[in-house]
Amino acid sequence: MLVHTVYFWIKAGAPASAQNQLVADCKQYLAKVPTVQQLFAGPPARTVKREVIDNSYSVGLTVIFDDLAGHDVYQEHPLHLEFVARNKPQWAKVQVYDFE
Amino acid sequence: MLVHTVYFWIKAGAPASAQNQLVADCKQYLAKVPTVQQLFAGPPARTVKREVIDNSYSVGLTVIFDDLAGHDVYQEHPLHLEFVARNKPQWAKVQVYDFE
Repeated sequence: MLVHTVYFWIKAGAPASAQNQLVADCKQYLAKVPTVQQLFAGPPARTVKREVIDNSYSVGLTVIFDDLAGHDVYQEHPLHLEFVARNKPQWAKVQVYDFE
Repeated sequence: MLVHTVYFWIKAGAPASAQNQLVADCKQYLAKVPTVQQLFAGPPARTVKREVIDNSYSVGLTVIFDDLAGHDVYQEHPLHLEFVARNKPQWAKVQVYDFE
């Protein structure tokens, strides 16, 4: 099992639609990569504010793979590359966490 | 759907067993809270190093809830409080991300 999580910060000057497009593209492009077992994507939740919570990002994405090999296939897959090409121009910052 | 993710940094002086105990306790305590739909926990993965990847933490935890109400029940549940009491003395830093 490999849990691949990405937090995206969208540029201040990006169109208002950029956040929704990013979430939609996670589901439309990334979720269709064959090695993706599960995929979750969305904006910060309305959980009670606490000092330990970072809710400064625009969209969170968590992808579950069976293993490291599945993750590696995903990184190079045409659907992933197309997702990046479509959305990256709007990204100010991206932070990735992988655990297994 | 609510995705609750926590990254734990264990204190430098903690016993070597602290990391394994933390992962085991996620599964033994937190996964048994009734509102938890799925739970993933483990150390940083051996994915290829990239500048955007933060692998400085000790353990990652991702918990899937049906909704915000399920998350709120979990925060106050005795099993969660016991998990915190058992492990918190070894934590140098905790970072939380919730998205939905």
